[in-house]
Amino acid sequence: MKTLIKNVHVLTMDDEETEYKHGFVLIDGEDIVEVGAMRADLPVVDEVIDGQDGILLPGFVNTHTHCGMIPFRSLGDDVPDRLRRFLFPLEAYMTRKLVHASTAYAIGEMLLSGVTSFCDMYYFEDEVARACEEMGVRAVVGETIIDMETCDSKNTQESLSYCEAFLKKWKNHPLLTPAIAPHAPNTNNASDLKKIVALSQKYQAPITMHVEEMDYEMQEFAENYQQTPLAFLESLGYFEHRFIMAHCIHLNEADIKLLTQAPKHVSVAHCIGANTKSAKGVAPVKELLEQGVLVGLGTDGPSSGNTLDLFTQMRMVANFHKTKNHDRRAFPAKEIVKLATKNGAKALGFSRVGTIEPNKKADLVLVETKSVNMFPIFDAYSALVYSANASNVSAVWVNGRQLVKEKQLVHANLDELREKLYKEMDIFVKEAKKRTV
Amino acid sequence: MKTLIKNVHVLTMDDEETEYKHGFVLIDGEDIVEVGAMRADLPVVDEVIDGQDGILLPGFVNTHTHCGMIPFRSLGDDVPDRLRRFLFPLEAYMTRKLVHASTAYAIGEMLLSGVTSFCDMYYFEDEVARACEEMGVRAVVGETIIDMETCDSKNTQESLSYCEAFLKKWKNHPLLTPAIAPHAPNTNNASDLKKIVALSQKYQAPITMHVEEMDYEMQEFAENYQQTPLAFLESLGYFEHRFIMAHCIHLNEADIKLLTQAPKHVSVAHCIGANTKSAKGVAPVKELLEQGVLVGLGTDGPSSGNTLDLFTQMRMVANFHKTKNHDRRAFPAKEIVKLATKNGAKALGFSRVGTIEPNKKADLVLVETKSVNMFPIFDAYSALVYSANASNVSAVWVNGRQLVKEKQLVHANLDELREKLYKEMDIFVKEAKKRTV
Repeated sequence: MKTLIKNVHVLTMDDEETEYKHGFVLIDGEDIVEVGAMRADLPVVDEVIDGQDGILLPGFVNTHTHCGMIPFRSLGDDVPDRLRRFLFPLEAYMTRKLVHASTAYAIGEMLLSGVTSFCDMYYFEDEVARACEEMGVRAVVGETIIDMETCDSKNTQESLSYCEAFLKKWKNHPLLTPAIAPHAPNTNNASDLKKIVALSQKYQAPITMHVEEMDYEMQEFAENYQQTPLAFLESLGYFEHRFIMAHCIHLNEADIKLLTQAPKHVSVAHCIGANTKSAKGVAPVKELLEQGVLVGLGTDGPSSGNTLDLFTQMRMVANFHKTKNHDRRAFPAKEIVKLATKNGAKALGFSRVGTIEPNKKADLVLVETKSVNMFPIFDAYSALVYSANASNVSAVWVNGRQLVKEKQLVHANLDELREKLYKEMDIFVKEAKKRTV
Repeated sequence: MKTLIKNVHVLTMDDEETEYKHGFVLIDGEDIVEVGAMRADLPVVDEVIDGQDGILLPGFVNTHTHCGMIPFRSLGDDVPDRLRRFLFPLEAYMTRKLVHASTAYAIGEMLLSGVTSFCDMYYFEDEVARACEEMGVRAVVGETIIDMETCDSKNTQESLSYCEAFLKKWKNHPLLTPAIAPHAPNTNNASDLKKIVALSQKYQAPITMHVEEMDYEMQEFAENYQQTPLAFLESLGYFEHRFIMAHCIHLNEADIKLLTQAPKHVSVAHCIGANTKSAKGVAPVKELLEQGVLVGLGTDGPSSGNTLDLFTQMRMVANFHKTKNHDRRAFPAKEIVKLATKNGAKALGFSRVGTIEPNKKADLVLVETKSVNMFPIFDAYSALVYSANASNVSAVWVNGRQLVKEKQLVHANLDELREKLYKEMDIFVKEAKKRTV
């Protein structure tokens, strides 16, 4: 099946940053086969989509989220130490079915905002992978390992077993990459961290992990190991395979040097919205980018970042890093769109997405420009970063398949996804309300 | 005409912060006459609106914007010193008709995002007032005085005359308050600043002004006057009548003390999005609020803040001030909604709006909760600040009159507003493009 998307402003995000102000993209099956400026003799195809002067760009890549946590949204947003006071206790009420329903809903939300691939970290990750498959998205799916009893395992031995079975089951999936997700350097013991890296080597599985997010994490490592969490992980071999580190707020100079020397499969998932909402700080992203470290953008989970779209994150990246560096020229819009697309794809190891070029997979997002906030447009990147919001996304393709059309999910019904999720949330809601009076 | 809005989660924003989770509001003509929890014997009225569990709150108040500047949106966002390099030169191409068309469009954008009243500062302010009247909104409209030739006046003498005629023409309007808008302490000379304060006294007209926005403004005053711009303005009598100061980024301790002692008609329009996008800094709002200084939120113009909705601003207020103060409890969602509604109304001197209470004017906004980002809702304030965006606004009333219904303008057509604006932008666009190659 061949599809032609015409009359669009194409931001290819290729190495030359080619733009076609009146352009087209031709899809054949899963692949992009041609991209260029509109011309008279466009090929005859099965389906023609008129983009009506919308902006077509590579699908957004959300490099860090927790799809299972939709039930936590708007719960205790402004309380201190929410992780230990709210999230950990309530996660006891997460069930296999609840994680599945939450993930399907979260994927619906991401698709409607133009996110075509992401990196997830949660429990019952087999259910997450199933929901991803059902919804048709591309993802790195990481089973969480943490040094305490969880909703899916009595102890780390159990979760390591769960994880190993999970890695075996999902490897070689065309759209999904199963991964291991140790929670954080200070919530996993050294012995488990070693087992995790061995498991990663055995299955060539990526690792994704919260790193240098918490001030108390930094203190604990300074006291117990006289080194940073990052240096500790590196010494255990964590840089030898794909390693996606969320947050990295508290990197020091030595850490940045370590990352500069690290292989390109080591990357940072920058979650500006969640990090600043929780007053944790602003990661040194300018320094990382100057040193060529790979950085993608992440929303974090719906409890921490609240929404799962990258528009909110892009605007915050601009404002926080311009202000931090006292320079309005820093982090121009085009660079930020690059972080949200091409760099994110590289970070997750999806070598055939992130740009609009022939022979790439067709992960695409169309942003309409008819809404009131999208006029005028002198610069399409500026419009995306400073004006657009999730509601401007009108169409989305993943791997050549259209999943959003006219701002609606094509193969799923949002009301049904919500109803299903709400039904599974019954006990969770009762327990949550006990804690919010 | 009586209207009943039922099945809504009412955030009254009254002094007791009363919420009705399943509530109603009764409007009679321009006024709110009753608000409460849903009950069986609700009165029979002319029109019943089922809010379908949406959140009903007082209309948002945008305390600082430049409606005439829609043509500048997405133009040179990331260049240094844009004001003097881009904005001033291009403003030569603003015409009376262009300001009118831009303002009508900007009001359309604000209404669609739930902004029911605002404070404007621009040129040809008579056209701004006319557009406000046509669109049916509540506003403080300020004619700009600046020490240079402008699009509406050859010199300040001319603009002071224009302004005086403008103040006479619009005083006693039921929804509009004409005002004087000196551009900034460093772009008006001392002699003009004195004439402006005299004009304000003569007509009891508010003054709105950019104050302590620029680092070079601070330097100039330190060198020339050995005092801050704020102290200088106070010494000229600027605190004697209503005075709405935009930005106030660089306030020092003495400035904050001055504001603490100032009468309640002196207020700050905090424009976090514009201030941080331009890397100017973060105003000391926590300190102001602790001292009881009146602070509202502003989007700034579409060139600086890009969008005219307060959702974007509310989220940035949370993230920036929590991070600045290293405290995730600071600026809880409820406080931020208060700044965006009740406090904004107080700042602009609209004593009968800003809360949902009997005998207040019906300026209301309904935020739907069916969209994917609005579930679940444990806390309605959190949902507004951390999850909602402009597209969630489904209905808006100003002074009892419904201006937005089912996410569309009721009395205007957005496509027509855009077409009209685009036509007037012809020369502006050509000149703008010369400067962006």
